[in-house]
Amino acid sequence: MENEASVNHEAKTASTITIKGILSLLMQSVDANDGDKRVISLGMGDPTIYSCFHTTDVVQEAVVDTLQSQKFNGYAPTVGLLQTRRAIAEYLSRDLPYKLTSDDVFITSGCTQAIDVSVAMLAHPGANILLPRPGFPIYDLCAAFRQVEVRHYDLLPERGWEVDLEAIESLADQNTIALVIINPGNPCGNVYSYNHLKKIAETAKKLGTVVIADEVYGHLAFGSNPFVPMGVFGSDIPIITLGSLSKRWIVPGWRLGWFVTNDPCGTFRKPKVVERIKKYFDILGGPATFIQAAVPRIITETEEGFFRKTLNMLKHTSDVCCKEIKDIPCIFCPHKPDGSMAMMVKLNVSLLDDISDDIDFCFKVAKEEAVIVLPGTAVGLKDWLRITFAVDPSALEEAMKRIKGFYQRHAKKW
Amino acid sequence: MENEASVNHEAKTASTITIKGILSLLMQSVDANDGDKRVISLGMGDPTIYSCFHTTDVVQEAVVDTLQSQKFNGYAPTVGLLQTRRAIAEYLSRDLPYKLTSDDVFITSGCTQAIDVSVAMLAHPGANILLPRPGFPIYDLCAAFRQVEVRHYDLLPERGWEVDLEAIESLADQNTIALVIINPGNPCGNVYSYNHLKKIAETAKKLGTVVIADEVYGHLAFGSNPFVPMGVFGSDIPIITLGSLSKRWIVPGWRLGWFVTNDPCGTFRKPKVVERIKKYFDILGGPATFIQAAVPRIITETEEGFFRKTLNMLKHTSDVCCKEIKDIPCIFCPHKPDGSMAMMVKLNVSLLDDISDDIDFCFKVAKEEAVIVLPGTAVGLKDWLRITFAVDPSALEEAMKRIKGFYQRHAKKW
Repeated sequence: MENEASVNHEAKTASTITIKGILSLLMQSVDANDGDKRVISLGMGDPTIYSCFHTTDVVQEAVVDTLQSQKFNGYAPTVGLLQTRRAIAEYLSRDLPYKLTSDDVFITSGCTQAIDVSVAMLAHPGANILLPRPGFPIYDLCAAFRQVEVRHYDLLPERGWEVDLEAIESLADQNTIALVIINPGNPCGNVYSYNHLKKIAETAKKLGTVVIADEVYGHLAFGSNPFVPMGVFGSDIPIITLGSLSKRWIVPGWRLGWFVTNDPCGTFRKPKVVERIKKYFDILGGPATFIQAAVPRIITETEEGFFRKTLNMLKHTSDVCCKEIKDIPCIFCPHKPDGSMAMMVKLNVSLLDDISDDIDFCFKVAKEEAVIVLPGTAVGLKDWLRITFAVDPSALEEAMKRIKGFYQRHAKKW
Repeated sequence: MENEASVNHEAKTASTITIKGILSLLMQSVDANDGDKRVISLGMGDPTIYSCFHTTDVVQEAVVDTLQSQKFNGYAPTVGLLQTRRAIAEYLSRDLPYKLTSDDVFITSGCTQAIDVSVAMLAHPGANILLPRPGFPIYDLCAAFRQVEVRHYDLLPERGWEVDLEAIESLADQNTIALVIINPGNPCGNVYSYNHLKKIAETAKKLGTVVIADEVYGHLAFGSNPFVPMGVFGSDIPIITLGSLSKRWIVPGWRLGWFVTNDPCGTFRKPKVVERIKKYFDILGGPATFIQAAVPRIITETEEGFFRKTLNMLKHTSDVCCKEIKDIPCIFCPHKPDGSMAMMVKLNVSLLDDISDDIDFCFKVAKEEAVIVLPGTAVGLKDWLRITFAVDPSALEEAMKRIKGFYQRHAKKW
């Protein structure tokens, strides 16, 4: 009976943790609490509920205009509208030593779909992929669904969450299809220097592997390191760059992402490879045509002031977060974030009376304080927490105050 | 070297034909022609360029409103917004003898993504799937990417393109994961009677297989058979219903589709199955949140007059098409369409002087007449043509006139 077979097959992937799954359980835990505190979520990288993180008018107007024009209700080419691909090629080329063309750019339904495309397109029987720990569990899930073995390498908190390059060399073999880096980093808030990226490129070259550079937080850098796209090393190694409008333009629900081959040497331009990528896009169903059609205007007309305001706000809220953390003995931040919208803090359960681990901590904080924080286990690090600081400053302060109160009530009495 | 391995792996799926691929080649053939005829495409089911097939104002306003509210710029749950799932459950339940709930409905990026979800979720090693011939090649492509063997059963032109039930019985085995039917039919324009659907259900029950009912053209029935959703047999067999706003609301570019389990007996409600479907949606990246948020209003507020106008127009253009075809000796329509936006006509190359087959015919018609018609080979039937009649009537008449002129110039001189 084929249904039984399907179910057995399913069991293999069903155990993979997802961030949204855990956050939803935490939210249910809040709901079970009959207190009247307002729920504050430091759980997900979606700040759109706060007015200080609203997108700018021109972005919204551009989409209203393409919608009302009635010219974009029909199908786009499955790889994306030509003008959209061209606009993104030009946008990304600003920071590269060579020019991308529209042929290098494929439009996806958010960065999530771009992740799946990159894993599915490189997958082959016996393949493995190198993922950062802590990382972003959608990669693990995509790998599970595409039958690719996952090998985790560590990010090093004491070195600003840099990649453990030695670990990569020992993990990779001839079946390694890609090394994934996330920069600016989720969940760590790292922004890698040019020199570190160069070392990553050298390692990948030595190992003969593709680099998948997840730059969904591209340009969201507010620390000392400027954002450098991995694509600057595209002449040395084949690079797939993933990105989207979601974070920089603060419209994650619009689902407008991209899968880009940084490929001045033509590794991905073999006809069979291009053909297969195009066919894969035929089965995907990308973002709405009218949203795609607004992208050229969104990219050219967004004011620098909007980007600056977002960066200032993220710098401010990350500062608030780090300051408050110093007042809470059971958590510790080894590296102040330089970018993105999240940071990792170490949880010291030995200072707490009745907390067994990060998951227990997060469920109790949700229940008692109506504050949602992601347990590090969900991103691969037990007894750590991921805190999203893309939150209204007053809500963030209130949340940290509640976590402090939680600590005080649960602190071990010596 | 892993890149070589990927390329070899690619070769398996690269040969699958896609409609868009062929149409794009045909369009290039037109471009190569230096005549000044306006291009008329009878090639794709996207009538949005014609004002007689524009969507209605309330539909567009609903989306402008959710966009401008700024409440839906954030992430939706990956399975879709609750209000959207509920609205589609209620919409589909109108025509069913039981009630669907929001849990039965998963929101997809157009029906294309719903097709991939259904194939990917049922797939297991050694699985096969039964697809109609002629059919919709995205199914073949999804099956190729998900390593599912395709077995084609015939649709019978002499019986209104009904399913060859005997063929199905001989093709199915214990590894058959699903029987796919497309009703109303693309590419044939069939609309199956209640009795024929009942026989399909009985056959599926006997074989113990799921039915995937592709109802993307749901309600677009203008002949003698009313549209009956396959889900009416959901108490007898497990059914997956696929659909979207694309065709009935004429907004294919909005990419708002659904994957629905018609499952009063709970086959798909086993916790592991539900869990796996949910996790698969986590890697997809569905349609824009603000478009999803507009669905409840779109469903409740669209005027019956709009639907009626579309049906009248499709009835009219299919009549025009059939009338003109009678004047062109080399093509023959075995069954007048009762629904959808396309029909199949038989090409008699023996009446033509220098045309070798359907593909040759279509390329020469494109080059000489700037008319795009899909060769039947692209949907599985050599020496047939698929004609899309969801076209402005005057453009359709002009296109048919040009095909007639083409015939006259190329007719065999006896």
